[in-house]
Amino acid sequence: MKLTQALTSAVQLRKDNVGTIHVGRSRTWKEIGHRVAGAAGGFRRLGVKGGDRIAILAFNSDLYIEAFYSIAWAGAVAVPLNTRWAAAENAYVLRDSEPVVLLVDDAFAAMAVELRASQPLAALVYVGEGRAPEGMLSYAALAEEDPVEDMSGADNELAGIFYTGGTTGFPKGVMLSHANIIYESLVWIYSLNFREDTRYLHSAALFHLAGTSPMVALTLVGGTHVTISRFEPEAAMKAIAAHKVDYCLFVPTMLNMMLNHSSFGQYDLSSVKDCEYGASPMPDALLVKLMKVLPGWRFHQGYGMTECAALATILPWKYHALEGPVAEKRKSAGRAAPGVELRIVDDAGKELPRGSVGEIAIRGSGVMLGYWRKPEETARALRGGWLHTGDCAWMDEDGFVYIVDRLKDMIVSGGENVYSGEVENAIFQHENVRECAVIAVPDPHWGEAVHAIVVPKEGRALVPEMVIAHCRTLIAGYKCPRSVEIRLDPLPLTGSGKIMKSALREEKWRGYSRSVN
Amino acid sequence: MKLTQALTSAVQLRKDNVGTIHVGRSRTWKEIGHRVAGAAGGFRRLGVKGGDRIAILAFNSDLYIEAFYSIAWAGAVAVPLNTRWAAAENAYVLRDSEPVVLLVDDAFAAMAVELRASQPLAALVYVGEGRAPEGMLSYAALAEEDPVEDMSGADNELAGIFYTGGTTGFPKGVMLSHANIIYESLVWIYSLNFREDTRYLHSAALFHLAGTSPMVALTLVGGTHVTISRFEPEAAMKAIAAHKVDYCLFVPTMLNMMLNHSSFGQYDLSSVKDCEYGASPMPDALLVKLMKVLPGWRFHQGYGMTECAALATILPWKYHALEGPVAEKRKSAGRAAPGVELRIVDDAGKELPRGSVGEIAIRGSGVMLGYWRKPEETARALRGGWLHTGDCAWMDEDGFVYIVDRLKDMIVSGGENVYSGEVENAIFQHENVRECAVIAVPDPHWGEAVHAIVVPKEGRALVPEMVIAHCRTLIAGYKCPRSVEIRLDPLPLTGSGKIMKSALREEKWRGYSRSVN
Repeated sequence: MKLTQALTSAVQLRKDNVGTIHVGRSRTWKEIGHRVAGAAGGFRRLGVKGGDRIAILAFNSDLYIEAFYSIAWAGAVAVPLNTRWAAAENAYVLRDSEPVVLLVDDAFAAMAVELRASQPLAALVYVGEGRAPEGMLSYAALAEEDPVEDMSGADNELAGIFYTGGTTGFPKGVMLSHANIIYESLVWIYSLNFREDTRYLHSAALFHLAGTSPMVALTLVGGTHVTISRFEPEAAMKAIAAHKVDYCLFVPTMLNMMLNHSSFGQYDLSSVKDCEYGASPMPDALLVKLMKVLPGWRFHQGYGMTECAALATILPWKYHALEGPVAEKRKSAGRAAPGVELRIVDDAGKELPRGSVGEIAIRGSGVMLGYWRKPEETARALRGGWLHTGDCAWMDEDGFVYIVDRLKDMIVSGGENVYSGEVENAIFQHENVRECAVIAVPDPHWGEAVHAIVVPKEGRALVPEMVIAHCRTLIAGYKCPRSVEIRLDPLPLTGSGKIMKSALREEKWRGYSRSVN
Repeated sequence: MKLTQALTSAVQLRKDNVGTIHVGRSRTWKEIGHRVAGAAGGFRRLGVKGGDRIAILAFNSDLYIEAFYSIAWAGAVAVPLNTRWAAAENAYVLRDSEPVVLLVDDAFAAMAVELRASQPLAALVYVGEGRAPEGMLSYAALAEEDPVEDMSGADNELAGIFYTGGTTGFPKGVMLSHANIIYESLVWIYSLNFREDTRYLHSAALFHLAGTSPMVALTLVGGTHVTISRFEPEAAMKAIAAHKVDYCLFVPTMLNMMLNHSSFGQYDLSSVKDCEYGASPMPDALLVKLMKVLPGWRFHQGYGMTECAALATILPWKYHALEGPVAEKRKSAGRAAPGVELRIVDDAGKELPRGSVGEIAIRGSGVMLGYWRKPEETARALRGGWLHTGDCAWMDEDGFVYIVDRLKDMIVSGGENVYSGEVENAIFQHENVRECAVIAVPDPHWGEAVHAIVVPKEGRALVPEMVIAHCRTLIAGYKCPRSVEIRLDPLPLTGSGKIMKSALREEKWRGYSRSVN
């Protein structure tokens, strides 16, 4: 198994079909195959050898997809950098992963000059739309060179290092092998039903596994990738309408932003047949609203993480019922995907009985090789041969998994566990609430207290007392926020579109220490 | 990845659903999981250790499926024996694979006593329906023991040795790993669209990969296995009707036997939605007839071999058109399955241009570890990192693969290549023909000559001149049989239901030597 096999398949099976669409430009799989093999030759001539790293810092585009495969074709290891990170964070990643080439687009050309100082590079390669800036080579020119033979690694060899974390502490590089990614792609095409004529909108960032995984999966069957540089509600809706997108993936925050956008309703979204969501908990009130407002969309939930190459559980469309015998399952994250072993375990790694809350542990071929140059953290995460996810959940008798919280987002108040997700779900049901995050704050008496940060909908009134009173009607007293902060600015998001609770927590915990963080 | 993961998934996701149905008996996945873990404990108490082989010689049944998983659960390696082979052949396999335990059912209890002499065994275990014969332990009793923890091997460790060949020369043991089989199962569930509510009839023998692969694939999604001891046309139709089977797999010969059976039309076959066929070439005339007579069945073709854990290409239902733009594709074996790299290569292993006939070479995670204790044959089969299949084919511009013959079935007559399959296809279009096989026979002038062996339909007249004259209207003169033999008995079949051409050829080549055989 090798990453390039996805591309080889697309070229063999669908050579005259459109493989990528970016803004006004589209290319067939045959053209893409040719360009990838050309650019790979270019990388080799720059001195890239098997196992060398090549980093990429760019917004989504067709060139990003090509570059990703060129890196593998040249036998190198991809290091996708996070477009939301500050230069200092990406400089750390470069020092940690030691790439020999860095690819950047227009948005990051300036940062690249700065980053170059932190890591000696054989070349900077420009994957932007214009002419390559001074001192950079042009990817467009490399892609026009003569194609070379595939020199890709295979099986358990390293295919990419995907950094997670950041914002607090140092980012960790998740090492995924060729087998990890191809295997996960097979799970993806089965579970989420990708077909050769699927037209997929990449609204998740391609540097994130929620972008990488469907990118490889869709290539494997020779579908069509539609890219927008980055998610903006109107740009996404426009792309769906313009390119008759029939499959998309959004994090809940993105869906919420689209629904609340003034242009919602102006674009024809009826080409969409399937929509996957995940990467952060879906508030049930939002899901119910989506199902009502977009009745032609079949929603599928995927739960996973970078450490298992993206997918661990799937809640397919048929469990997204508003009523009837399976309606309760809608509140779960679904069941283990085929080939994924999933257990709910206690602190000692022992499987807990159904219904008990514990940590999700995963085994299967998507599970990472480990963290790059972090043997201790690797050993801790993979202890006993199982990936310990840091997510708390319980499993019902039918194998459905209900995620209650991140271990570190859980608030331990006076010995009671309060799951931030449950409180957020309650707050979210208030009609004036647009966004919210519930976090632990230090409390002299209870150790930790429940704190809510809430953003009202535009033009709607909201005061702390309203929020607390509303919660009291829905959840137990000890779970209700003891303090509420109303903010008018949107909450900070991570690169994958989740609310950055770690950053929110950091403000409150300065000068204190917290056991989990 | 481990074989037992399929079972663990079925138990976790579908515990109260029926997992197996055999004759009047059905069991839920929970019961099966319990029994498998019980029998595995029994094996361990017999002295079975990790990596030990356990052989099984039995017709299809629910117990066969359980036993297969028990072997893996105990950490052992399965060696399924061929129910069509003579005692001498199976004795060879036992000496070659050195199992510590042999499982047999009623049909093979007598042979087992004989086989025991050829290989020291810790125990004979009876997987039949009655009381265990003298000197044998009872699988039923082992399955009632207390469940033990899963001790299965994983990933690239050996999961099973599947013998192929026989009849001429010594059988070769194809070594498949846990990853080979689980990976192939993922391909299978995607390509052939297995769902958790699929009710699958096992008419192919479970010792054969065309039985093993769907068995593991269907378990992975928690579907329902329906077994009949062995294929007989009426038994198969009866089982479909009785258990509302919606998915089945037949080799073309079996489909032909059902169509020609006097009871065809008496059973309700309308529950079947999907039917996979493969393992030997499908005569187009038969396929066309099937599509007309069974309009509710969606036909899918699978092409593969034991050496790649069963599936290499798939021709899905949508290419089974009688007319229109894709109708020509019906004559292909489809396109490479996801994750399978497939090329048409020349003798030197170089990829040939589209349209040129060469050998099919395959790379991917289904490809075997090698042949058991046959390093030279392994090196030859896997030279250059590609599995050389021994099948001749060409590929069209859209990646569809047209298999023209087995290399060894191809007739080289006066320097011209004649593909036996093409000649058989022509003969088969004669309305009086029930079965036929075209083989090479020694010819003093041409080296090899085209010889046909034909079985007429019951009560229909057929003489050699008719067959030859019929062929002349359809194919070039040099391809037409130079001699035709009319037989009234059915042609000999291999364990997987293919016509045993090697045996037919053997009769004609006694005293001669042939370069490929």
